[in-house]
This record gives sequence, structure tokens and C-alpha cells, in this order.
Amino acid sequence: MAARKQLVLGAVFYGVGGPGQHHTWLSPEIPGDASVDIRWYIARAQQAEAAKFDHIFIVDSQFITPDSPNHYLNRLEPLTLLSAVAVHTTNIGLVGTLTTSYNDPFNLARRLASLDLISGGRAGWNVVATGDGGTAGNYGRKEHYDYAARYGRALESVKVVQGLWDSYEDDAFPRDKERGVFFDKSKQHPLHHVGEHFQVVGPLNIERSPQGQPVIFQAGDSDEGRDLGASIAEAIFTHAATVEQAVAFRTDLRARAAAKGRDPDHVLIVPGFNPIIADTDEEARAIEAERVGGKDFDRALKELGRPFGWHDFTQYDLDAPFPELGDAGARSFKTQAEGIKKLAREHNLTLRQVVQRSIDSQRSPFVGSPLTVANEIQRWFEAGAFDGLNIGVAVPSEFARFTDQVLPILRERGIARTEYASTTLRGNYGLPVPANVNAR
Amino acid sequence: MAARKQLVLGAVFYGVGGPGQHHTWLSPEIPGDASVDIRWYIARAQQAEAAKFDHIFIVDSQFITPDSPNHYLNRLEPLTLLSAVAVHTTNIGLVGTLTTSYNDPFNLARRLASLDLISGGRAGWNVVATGDGGTAGNYGRKEHYDYAARYGRALESVKVVQGLWDSYEDDAFPRDKERGVFFDKSKQHPLHHVGEHFQVVGPLNIERSPQGQPVIFQAGDSDEGRDLGASIAEAIFTHAATVEQAVAFRTDLRARAAAKGRDPDHVLIVPGFNPIIADTDEEARAIEAERVGGKDFDRALKELGRPFGWHDFTQYDLDAPFPELGDAGARSFKTQAEGIKKLAREHNLTLRQVVQRSIDSQRSPFVGSPLTVANEIQRWFEAGAFDGLNIGVAVPSEFARFTDQVLPILRERGIARTEYASTTLRGNYGLPVPANVNAR
Repeated sequence: MAARKQLVLGAVFYGVGGPGQHHTWLSPEIPGDASVDIRWYIARAQQAEAAKFDHIFIVDSQFITPDSPNHYLNRLEPLTLLSAVAVHTTNIGLVGTLTTSYNDPFNLARRLASLDLISGGRAGWNVVATGDGGTAGNYGRKEHYDYAARYGRALESVKVVQGLWDSYEDDAFPRDKERGVFFDKSKQHPLHHVGEHFQVVGPLNIERSPQGQPVIFQAGDSDEGRDLGASIAEAIFTHAATVEQAVAFRTDLRARAAAKGRDPDHVLIVPGFNPIIADTDEEARAIEAERVGGKDFDRALKELGRPFGWHDFTQYDLDAPFPELGDAGARSFKTQAEGIKKLAREHNLTLRQVVQRSIDSQRSPFVGSPLTVANEIQRWFEAGAFDGLNIGVAVPSEFARFTDQVLPILRERGIARTEYASTTLRGNYGLPVPANVNAR
Repeated sequence: MAARKQLVLGAVFYGVGGPGQHHTWLSPEIPGDASVDIRWYIARAQQAEAAKFDHIFIVDSQFITPDSPNHYLNRLEPLTLLSAVAVHTTNIGLVGTLTTSYNDPFNLARRLASLDLISGGRAGWNVVATGDGGTAGNYGRKEHYDYAARYGRALESVKVVQGLWDSYEDDAFPRDKERGVFFDKSKQHPLHHVGEHFQVVGPLNIERSPQGQPVIFQAGDSDEGRDLGASIAEAIFTHAATVEQAVAFRTDLRARAAAKGRDPDHVLIVPGFNPIIADTDEEARAIEAERVGGKDFDRALKELGRPFGWHDFTQYDLDAPFPELGDAGARSFKTQAEGIKKLAREHNLTLRQVVQRSIDSQRSPFVGSPLTVANEIQRWFEAGAFDGLNIGVAVPSEFARFTDQVLPILRERGIARTEYASTTLRGNYGLPVPANVNAR
């Protein structure tokens, strides 16, 4: 059962092309420097806003090698990017990825609160614990935080940041020129946080926005990741290959949230998809076949290394059994790395077969004519597979297929909005404004 | 002698009013929430850009108490602010204050490089070592860094950040769609910095901008501050009460820069001023008299505490000798605190007299009719007192007095520009694009 009547719709922008879209930079529609061209992001955000999307979503990373994917190599820092987009849009939400592993909570709180005020209450924070182990070297650490510390920091960081966001009661600034009263001192509150990972006195030097606080996004499929999401997330970015898998994930997350005393309807599950839409189902499937074809194999082989700390898989025989890797990945994307090792072991897969499965797993469940795709999205939504979708966007005309051909069908059926409900992100999601813990 | 033919012109925005402007928020021209209203900053930047100013300048701080000045209490984070301004302006430089005391160099490098690309090469970084000792508590430290560590971190941080900015050679991204070549791996360079305060492997995940690297600003009047400025600064924000003092400061800084093997003409000295301009000299002086009048005394008494770690001076008898303070301020604004103590001791001043001197020291040397102010600015410039001015701006109509009445006189005399020379900040300053250390 759907918990809500209308889909949450997000657009994920990768500039020159993200996962499953590595060759899209070759499209004549995409400027070669799209990943660092703010005009590109503004135009894409405006395209999504014209289609009444809830939010745009910006991913991030801080560690690169010469072999990193194109959109990792050269990219704008997410909040700097989103602040520029904020002043050329009016309703769409602005969700930025910021790691709790290598940022002070005070700086996170300040920058996100600034974006929230600049956008009039449209900011979202995708909370991540850094996976790439190599990132440590860019922040003066010999070794990346272990798994427990990473998740401990993430949880505590969010609590500190949310505490700082309530530093001022909502009526702390009377700004009464006649009486000459700018500020009511009694409505400023320090935090005095002392925890395992952070000590922060506060107060933060910025007031709350019209939506109270930025919306908390989270991703992460491990047990710890799900638990963190159930504790803190108001929206969860995930991946889903089948409707059954998606329903199971959402059911689990809602149960975990309820067990923590939260309203499950205040945890929106929003998986990411790259739909392939063409005039007919046959055409769409032909495009898909071409996409997952041979020329992506080398790229997929390289990307397989990421969860293992960018391990180099080109050194192995493709047709020999999947190599023994010891504890490679223990300090990177552990769950993902362990999942791949387990899969290979249980099915006796060769390296080539593992790579092929990773390519197949990127196949979109939404491939076909506009009607087919609309039907499938409705089926998933009504089955309780998601509260909405994050559409991966690279080529504008492909995104327009979704907004101009699929969305009108969903609107007609009443499951996609025709107008914004609010000028804030919470307002459009239907999430309540969090009470200020310091309000009396 | 002036090293350049035309003045550098900067505008310093404090939102609801900065030093010497604490009551300006009462002006009907200023929205009560100006400090957190991005539309206010965009409009002010556009006003400065219409007058062909070189840059806008945003100050910062991270520590507040209930007694902090209005513009400290509630403000936007500088880079988030400037990114939004960048996409509503085209030529004006965007200088933001960011502390090296409580930011990782990797994050500083990334965010500043992002602003530099978003603005097409108009970013400037005002490098500060945090003075307010209380800031430590917001970043998990029991005690603020001592003076040596603060300046050591600042110097090393700038070197690391500049190193990271050169991670890519300028032709690292061919983006050749025909040949399918996005990136030339051989042109990505890690940093492998190992220093006293920081270890940073790199590379940074962002390319250089049209101006090569953001311009480095610095402030700080202590011996260590001047030495740091002479080492790293391309522009220096300072204060000057008399032309003699200003000439001495500039002469000293140029000599220090030359002693370090730098071209002194590449270190622009740009002090801050709040000019008071009226139709006649008499009217301007009347406005000044009102400004430095009685109602600012309490504010000045409170602000006197800042260099001493926000020491509370209201507890003392105003007419008794300046109190013994021990080492208060040793971990805050040491030079300023020591200077005040020395002044009081040498002249046997009471607390009231010290406060009055601090009010007087904020008196602007540029007070009078447009012609008087233009004459004075020209006299200082030709005496070698500065390479240009940072005009403190709160009330728009007062700023317009400068742009519309003083500037035309300076333009006629050939010492202020009539058109922008460039779309980059370096281009307008006449500073060279720094060579990429990794270029072959």
C-alpha cells in the first residue's frame, strides 16, 4: 500500500554522466565540461522545476585516482553548486551530499542552514559516511575510520547538527526598529554537546528557515546503514532491481523506524532509476541492449574495484574463478564488497561473470514506451515499493521523455502533482516542520 | 608614489551593519534581516558592480555570545553567500573570509575552487587565523590554538591549498568527443604534502579557473601577521587612521614582500574606510559628530572586550585607571589586546578614555563634500598610502553618495576605472595568472 497519494520525484544530476551513463558525455547535448559548468546545473534544475519535481540531488566524493570515472575527476562541491542553483529556482528542493567523516558538525550545520535560508527553506542534506578508504589521505589520516567509527560519527554528527540548527527560537529576532530591539537575548541557546566523537559548545550563528530545518536524506544498505536511516532519515536514497526487493526494503525500513518510535510515513523511500523511454517498447529495449553492450565492460571491470578500495581487477584472468581478496574493502564499502565476494563464492563465478552481473544489475526496471514505463511505476508505487523515484539524468532530451511523455500519464492518474504544494521542501514532501527543542 | 594608475575598489558588506555602523540597521533602507537575506547581498553586489568595483568582501566569525554585535549573531556562511551572488553578477570579484584554524585545507581548496569556476574566475580568499578564543569550543577543542600554531597553520594551509589548486594541468581535459578522449591521465598530479600541521595526499578533484587560482587576501597587523601577508597575500585588508600611518604600513609590507623575493606590485594594500559624504563639509562633519556621539559608548565598551576574549568591561569603574587584565587575550587578538594595554599604561588612561579613543579611532579620514573626499583619496593614493580602498557599506543611499558623487571625480582624474578590464578578479587587479607548478 502506498503511504501517500502522489509520488516524490527527484532528479539526480551527474554532469558528464554517472553510474550506467559513462558514455553520455559523448552526447552532443552535453557540454564536455558539464560537471563544472554552473549554467548546466541551473538549466537542468529549471527543467526539473518546470516538471514540478520535488528535488534535485547532487552526489559527491573527495578521493580520486587517474582511473576514476569522469564525473568523479572534476566536479563542483555540492553546496557551493546548490547555492548558485537556489537563486535561479523558486520551488524545487536542493539536496546535497556532505560526508560526516571529514567535516566538522559546526561547519556542516552552518553551511546547510545558509543554503536553507538562501533557498527559502528548500535545503536537504544527504548524510554519508565516506566509503572510499583513500579519502583519509586527503584529511591527514593514515587510515580511514573503521566501520563502527564511521557510523558512530554519522549518527552523532546529525544529532549535533540538528541541535545547532535550533540555537535560536523562531522569535529570537524582533527587529523592531521603532523600539530599537534587534534581538531577544533570552532566545539564543548554546548546545553544550559532549559525545564520543564530538564536543560542540554552540550556539550556531544563524537562525532557522521557513521549513525549520533542512530535510535529512540518507543512503546505505548494510544493517548499520539501515539502522542509521531508520534513526535519522526523512528520505532514503536506495537502489532496487525488482519490485519484490524494493517492497522488502521499504517494509524493513518502515518497521525499523516504527520500532524507534518514529512515524514511518515520515521516512520516504526514494530509490534511484535510469529509465529508458522510447516511442515503442522494442525501441527502448534496443537502446538498452546497446547501453549494456561490450564497450561498457572495461569500465565495469574498473568500477568493480571501488568497493574494494579501488582494487585493480585488470591484473586477473577474466575466465578464472573470482580472485581471493583477503580483507580488501574492509575500510571501504564493506557491505558491497562482502556481498560481491559472497555472490562469487556461492555461485562459483568467474571474474567475467561477476562483472557481467554488475552490468546487469544496473539494468533499469523501467524500460519501454511512455505508457509501459508509467504503468510499471504505478504498479511499483501501489505495491508499496517506493514513495517516489530519483531519476538519474544526463542527457536532457532523455529526461524530457520522462517529464513530457511519462509524467502526464501519471498526473492524469492522480499520482503525480500538477502544481507545487509549497515553496519549501518539507511542504512539498508533506513532512512536518520539526518543533524547535528550545521553544517554550 | 602610486604603484598603479587606478585605484582598487572594494565594497565590504555587513548586512545589518558592521564596525562603526551598529545602528544602521535602524535605517528604513535596510531590511531587519539583511544579514541573512540573499536578495540584499545580490542587490548590493549589483550596485557595486554597476560602479565598476573590483570586488565585494565578506567578513566572518564562528563564535557568538548573547552580547555579540548584530551582524555576528545571525549571518550567512561567506562562500555559500558568494556562490549565490556569483550567478547574478558578471565582473565583480567575490572575496570570502575563511579561517585556516578550523577548516581542512582539502575542503578549503575545493570550495574556493568551486566558487572560482562558478564565477568564471572571480574568487578571492581572505585567509584568517581565528582570533576569537571561544571558537575552539565549537570545534571540539578545550583551548584555542596558540599564536604560533595559528600562524603556522595559516601559512601551511595556504601552501597546501595552492598546491591542490594545481592538481590538474590546464590541458588535462581534452573532452574530445570525436576521439572519445575525456581526460589525459598524465596531467593529474597528487600533492603528497607532509608538513607540521597538515598531511594531504591529493589530488584535488577540480580543475583550475580562467584566473588560474583564487586571489589570496590577508589581514593582520601584528609582526607575525605582516610577515604572513608578505609571504602569501596578493591583497591586504588593513585599517589606517592617518596618511602617515598608511604610508608606513604599505612601505613596510612592500619591503617585506621584496625581501621574500616577491614583486611588491603584486601585493595590493587595500585598507577599509567608512567615508561620510554630504553636500557640504559642514553637513558631513555634523553627521560624523552624531555617529560618534554618546549612544555608541555602551557598544564600544562591550566591543573593547573582544580582543581580550570578550572580557566584560562593564564591571569596572569607568573613571578609574584602565584595569589590570593579566594575560586576558593571549589566545585571542593578542596584538590588539597588547596594544590597548600598552596605550593605557603609557598615557595613564582611564577606562573611559580608552573607550573614547577606540571610538575616535573609528573616525573616518574621509569626511566631507564629494570634492573634499575625492581630493583626500587622491592625496592618499598619490602619497603611496594605499593601492585602493575597501568601502564599508551598510546604507545603500550612503554608498550611492560614493559611487555617484565621488567616483565620477576620481574617474575624471583618471584614477578610477570607467570600464572593467577583464571578467576575472586577477585581470581587473592587473595581477598575473599564476603558473601551474605541474605544467611542463
